[in-house]
Amino acid sequence: MELIIDAQALGADLEALAAYSDDEPPGVTRLVYGPADLRARAYLRQQCDEAGLVVREDGLGNLFARWPGSEPDLPAVASGSHIDALPHAGRFDGTVGVVGALEALRALRRAGFQPRRSLEMILFTSEEPTRFGLGCLGSRAMIGALTPDQLRQLRDGQGRSLDEWRTSADFTAPLEAVALAPGAYGAFVELHIEQGPLLEVEGLPIGVVRAIAAPAALRVVIRGQSGHAGSVLMLERRDALLAGAELALAVEAAALGTGSRDTVATTGIFTIGPGAVNAIPNVATLEIDVRDIDLERRDQVLQAIKASTEAICARRHVTYDLIELNADPPATCDPAVVETIIKVCDRIGLPRLIMISRAYHDSLFMARICPTAMIFIPSRGGISHRADEYSDLDQIGQGVAVLAHSLAALSHA
Amino acid sequence: MELIIDAQALGADLEALAAYSDDEPPGVTRLVYGPADLRARAYLRQQCDEAGLVVREDGLGNLFARWPGSEPDLPAVASGSHIDALPHAGRFDGTVGVVGALEALRALRRAGFQPRRSLEMILFTSEEPTRFGLGCLGSRAMIGALTPDQLRQLRDGQGRSLDEWRTSADFTAPLEAVALAPGAYGAFVELHIEQGPLLEVEGLPIGVVRAIAAPAALRVVIRGQSGHAGSVLMLERRDALLAGAELALAVEAAALGTGSRDTVATTGIFTIGPGAVNAIPNVATLEIDVRDIDLERRDQVLQAIKASTEAICARRHVTYDLIELNADPPATCDPAVVETIIKVCDRIGLPRLIMISRAYHDSLFMARICPTAMIFIPSRGGISHRADEYSDLDQIGQGVAVLAHSLAALSHA
Repeated sequence: MELIIDAQALGADLEALAAYSDDEPPGVTRLVYGPADLRARAYLRQQCDEAGLVVREDGLGNLFARWPGSEPDLPAVASGSHIDALPHAGRFDGTVGVVGALEALRALRRAGFQPRRSLEMILFTSEEPTRFGLGCLGSRAMIGALTPDQLRQLRDGQGRSLDEWRTSADFTAPLEAVALAPGAYGAFVELHIEQGPLLEVEGLPIGVVRAIAAPAALRVVIRGQSGHAGSVLMLERRDALLAGAELALAVEAAALGTGSRDTVATTGIFTIGPGAVNAIPNVATLEIDVRDIDLERRDQVLQAIKASTEAICARRHVTYDLIELNADPPATCDPAVVETIIKVCDRIGLPRLIMISRAYHDSLFMARICPTAMIFIPSRGGISHRADEYSDLDQIGQGVAVLAHSLAALSHA
Repeated sequence: MELIIDAQALGADLEALAAYSDDEPPGVTRLVYGPADLRARAYLRQQCDEAGLVVREDGLGNLFARWPGSEPDLPAVASGSHIDALPHAGRFDGTVGVVGALEALRALRRAGFQPRRSLEMILFTSEEPTRFGLGCLGSRAMIGALTPDQLRQLRDGQGRSLDEWRTSADFTAPLEAVALAPGAYGAFVELHIEQGPLLEVEGLPIGVVRAIAAPAALRVVIRGQSGHAGSVLMLERRDALLAGAELALAVEAAALGTGSRDTVATTGIFTIGPGAVNAIPNVATLEIDVRDIDLERRDQVLQAIKASTEAICARRHVTYDLIELNADPPATCDPAVVETIIKVCDRIGLPRLIMISRAYHDSLFMARICPTAMIFIPSRGGISHRADEYSDLDQIGQGVAVLAHSLAALSHA
């Protein structure tokens, strides 16, 4: 089967989505359920209609655009990603996997392909944590990892509930119907920008993801004692900042200590109070992100960080509260789906790197209910979540080609 | 001479001033030239009038309330402090030295004392740096350490000039007339709360200050590279937070390294960007306060901090900008004035501690133009700049008694 990917159509879709934004171009800001998100969804629904796909939306706004197969009762084969964008992000993260899946289905249809298992494009709601503080809302709920009761408790930073937001966006179907039936999908493949430098460095067009690292996040609040920077002698201090500084360095040491390049740990939030040059800090708040593709190793790092927190705070006579914000397990991609993608690459002559995803995706959750893998394309400079994230249309088109051939193969598996 | 300090009058003055505040009691917030400051000044002018003092105000709002001596052409003997209060501060810092000086003059007058040198209460404008980012505005300008041109360049955080503020507060005299004539004062004594724990710990009512430590402040901005907390490997990072954390610990080590308890160093401001749990920090801003009573030792600490900044940033492949925000020299109090105060304590039977001031005060600047010393009273728990700073009326009254007797002695010296 010869497939022709329409790079112009892909470019037009990306251009159209980028215009639905609350940021100055080239930046893109698109928060779930906001006006820009709703206009982008309307655009995509129209594209799905024009492509002859059957569209369903659930109570969260997860969108399913199906091309029924010749054996429509078999578990379907799906592909998709998200369109919400962090503040001041770019136009490729997520969207490439949505318009890519759409173009893959359009290209297969143009080539006269007839699916056996139904093929489907999925748009996941709120992969980014911006609005409700928790990422992958849609996929978590679809696999039952987030119950309707838990969904109803979610609030944005101003206290407005997810229920208010979704109904104001006209997603009114019951939350009880969001979870998928067992066996709904036979395979899931997500196309995504790498968000890292490896493909560019290696000069390769395609990454085949064999495992997805998952983050655990901790929040540590350290409390010491304030006082005048001139009056309180050094040995009498209980400086919360200095304990926090030691902890941030211990986080780095814990990640380096595993000896594996697949372990990363980051203190991404670090605030202190009261925050005056002549006041000894009495509080420090750290949020710490730890990732690995190996659950046991990641949890060892978490334990090391907890032990360091205890030791540092005891030595510096400060107190602390430590809570685990989340700790999703990493995922191993399905070997058969990975093998299918590799064979496609080899057949159509695109060199590929077998790699891991260090960022996490809706695939992390889909992998819990069906055989899953991911296809990466290069990110210029390894940059993402910034206005200057970039992948060119040739690179995107190659990723879509691999995706389309893989979906075709999985449809007939 | 038997002096009777009117503790009730002192208490009423402190109570009245505390009510002129933009904070919820017991907190006090009183920014220079704001409505609360202007109402507090009006109250004090009235008290000065009732005490028969001759009031003069300069173009910055520094207030001078004089009791002319029998030899009015001799350099005067002055005492005073400030009434502006940091956000959410307490009612004693500064105000004790203003109402204390006022009550000292009233008590001397009640006792039938006749000054030889004129006695004067001074209210210094803006000892706190809140509005214009620079402390001791009034005293710096009075001694010529801040020129009229420099004063005219000062702006608040919203860009409003000191000139606009002072004229809106009806202080319209020329700034050129703020600097004092050489030899205007023969001695200056400031009564103040200790802002430290030593007098309480030792159980002593009076501290006689022999030296005033002075702060130097540095701002260091460290710039690294942001990136996704999952995608960028540990060894590829240029994390600005981790460099900042090392620097904060190096600041502590530099102060401890002098081996002197009189050296203190504090990182009081520490902010990072972009500040998301899944983003590697690309910028860290530190503001560092270093104090000592020994200028050479303090400057050695500054040098050590600068060297650490260079070494840490080079090792972590991040860049930095370091600027010195200020570096006032410490002051040694005048031995004769100190001796006068000690003799007063011994004569009236109040045990005293000869000590240093680790906080800085308008006295730091007055010491450059006339013989200066300070009298401290205990601060409960060593606390200041907080709503719960506290000294009881007996303690304040004892401080005022020592001040009044000292002013009397200096007036006839």
